[in-house]
Amino acid sequence: MNFNFYKNALGTVTLALLLVIAVHGFSQNSNPENSEDIYRDFKTELMWKANVKIGTMINVGKSKRGTRRVIPITGGTFSGPKIKGEVLPGGEDWQLVRPDGDTELYARYLMKTDDGTVLQILNKALMHAPAQGEEGGFYVKSVIDIEAPIESSYEYLNHAIFLGTLEMPQLKPNEAPYVIIGVYKVL
Amino acid sequence: MNFNFYKNALGTVTLALLLVIAVHGFSQNSNPENSEDIYRDFKTELMWKANVKIGTMINVGKSKRGTRRVIPITGGTFSGPKIKGEVLPGGEDWQLVRPDGDTELYARYLMKTDDGTVLQILNKALMHAPAQGEEGGFYVKSVIDIEAPIESSYEYLNHAIFLGTLEMPQLKPNEAPYVIIGVYKVL
Amino acid sequence: MNFNFYKNALGTVTLALLLVIAVHGFSQNSNPENSEDIYRDFKTELMWKANVKIGTMINVGKSKRGTRRVIPITGGTFSGPKIKGEVLPGGEDWQLVRPDGDTELYARYLMKTDDGTVLQILNKALMHAPAQGEEGGFYVKSVIDIEAPIESSYEYLNHAIFLGTLEMPQLKPNEAPYVIIGVYKVL
Amino acid sequence: MNFNFYKNALGTVTLALLLVIAVHGFSQNSNPENSEDIYRDFKTELMWKANVKIGTMINVGKSKRGTRRVIPITGGTFSGPKIKGEVLPGGEDWQLVRPDGDTELYARYLMKTDDGTVLQILNKALMHAPAQGEEGGFYVKSVIDIEAPIESSYEYLNHAIFLGTLEMPQLKPNEAPYVIIGVYKVL
Repeated sequence: MNFNFYKNALGTVTLALLLVIAVHGFSQNSNPENSEDIYRDFKTELMWKANVKIGTMINVGKSKRGTRRVIPITGGTFSGPKIKGEVLPGGEDWQLVRPDGDTELYARYLMKTDDGTVLQILNKALMHAPAQGEEGGFYVKSVIDIEAPIESSYEYLNHAIFLGTLEMPQLKPNEAPYVIIGVYKVL
Repeated sequence: MNFNFYKNALGTVTLALLLVIAVHGFSQNSNPENSEDIYRDFKTELMWKANVKIGTMINVGKSKRGTRRVIPITGGTFSGPKIKGEVLPGGEDWQLVRPDGDTELYARYLMKTDDGTVLQILNKALMHAPAQGEEGGFYVKSVIDIEAPIESSYEYLNHAIFLGTLEMPQLKPNEAPYVIIGVYKVL
Repeated sequence: MNFNFYKNALGTVTLALLLVIAVHGFSQNSNPENSEDIYRDFKTELMWKANVKIGTMINVGKSKRGTRRVIPITGGTFSGPKIKGEVLPGGEDWQLVRPDGDTELYARYLMKTDDGTVLQILNKALMHAPAQGEEGGFYVKSVIDIEAPIESSYEYLNHAIFLGTLEMPQLKPNEAPYVIIGVYKVL
Repeated sequence: MNFNFYKNALGTVTLALLLVIAVHGFSQNSNPENSEDIYRDFKTELMWKANVKIGTMINVGKSKRGTRRVIPITGGTFSGPKIKGEVLPGGEDWQLVRPDGDTELYARYLMKTDDGTVLQILNKALMHAPAQGEEGGFYVKSVIDIEAPIESSYEYLNHAIFLGTLEMPQLKPNEAPYVIIGVYKVL
């Protein structure tokens, strides 16, 4: 039985060669003084939006690296153009309020697609509330790493960087708390 | 002497309150079925472009987590609309070719602005070369974390997520190798 | 109100001075050729043993960094000479079987002492099964990082490195699965 | 050509089976109330001692996660019972003084054995200076992760956890600064 789990050494060499050739393809004007170079749009493609149910925050409190608190992830659903399924209960969002007041989120959880594939989601977010007199509004952005089975139809999720958005919807009476996470592949 | 290095506990409470209020400001339509929701542009602002000089790659070779190799960072310059200076020698780009063939870069180095401020740059990049028959070209994108002194005029670099670009310029005869790193604040 | 959450800058300077002076205190003979220098005992002190209840393993399967699987942590108790309490449900052990066959565990969970203090436990373990012909038995060792509230009576847990042991007890009929984690402060 | 870089899936199954069987071998009495259980010696074996030359510290200063500073690693030598060679220049020790005053070191560098093998060393240390009235002396301990080529005679370094010691020797006149790092395999 020959189980081709991992690419062989040849693949690595090919990658190195491709690197030298291919990166010229996305070279840009390196003169940053043109205004169109200063404001730039990064094109992305939506992978899914997830309604992630959250439990009651647990506080460690002020600790050695900042203020630590944890928000349980208790379930949910997700849906996108090419994928859908459920958020598995059991994940957690480990938050650290840094000494400078910003909050770093480290949310790690599993999702299961409707055809039974399990994905690991690692969502690292930064939240910054502007100080008095500081321009700009509340800032929250995240970067997401996904681990998908390499022989599944979702393997493409292993080969990109993803930006995340966070929405806190208005809850209906008696509705369990949840957040909406958008996952966008940087193209 | 009252040394306000770190925000106090009150700041954290304020942040939590702001969160509840402010995140509604960037809520979006959570129905992903409209085409304008699927392809989305993330607006960014160029912080700088850096010409980063690189030394000769050192290979550990195939190891326990994949193939490890290291590229020394030997100096350089950077320049943007509001900042400029030099790349300090001594940083390194620790690369790992993962078992699935993609390469993860972990480049950590220091830069010094022309007014003497030192910044830590941590640039994590993903490189993916398409397999035969796979659509799309060579993929390289990075996410950058910056540590700036909190009482400097560059403190704003602590409060955002940055996307990075990588260009490999055509070298002139006898020119020392370098790469061009673009750093864009996700707005 | 003067809230002394963090030490001030003076503390840092003191640390640097202490470093220069104090490290001479634990200097050892740097000639490694004496047999008593080759085999060395690191003294440790038991903090606690925890009976950690575990749920059913969830498998992502073979993915980009190796084989990913997750074991939920569903509760438990812990007890030591100076501390005791319960393991909170909701943590998880994120395991990665590396490409070379060893398994790296990353278990993160919360514990609550009997006087209501919450601690974050981050337990990183390595498991190695000897290859055919390789001397030595099954290897499992772990390193533990603890975050405790800085104004609690458990703050001392913030200031040390801990080694961990893992035991898998014989289960009684119908007993829910658990592991026994020993936590030892390196003195 | 059959290039056995990585173990196959069967190896993983074997590991799981071995785990169930083998961990009983190192089970201990889980009653922590006996004094011989509270103070425990972890046996280790010296891998090497390294004289690591260090350059001038570069300070970012007080930043978002604490106080950041960097110490260049400029060369050196290492020697142990079964291994010796040189420390390659170009590594760095990225230090963070945490908000609670302890210092976390993250030193990453390469070493080359006398038979030409390159090793990656990742040394994470904790330094704690006792507060006034706190018992115990200056504390510095480290945990070391090593990446060695899997087909080299040093592959055994991939399969263990290592404790590190740090000594700061008395320098002779005009001697360049260095530290002595001891690396001990936890048996």
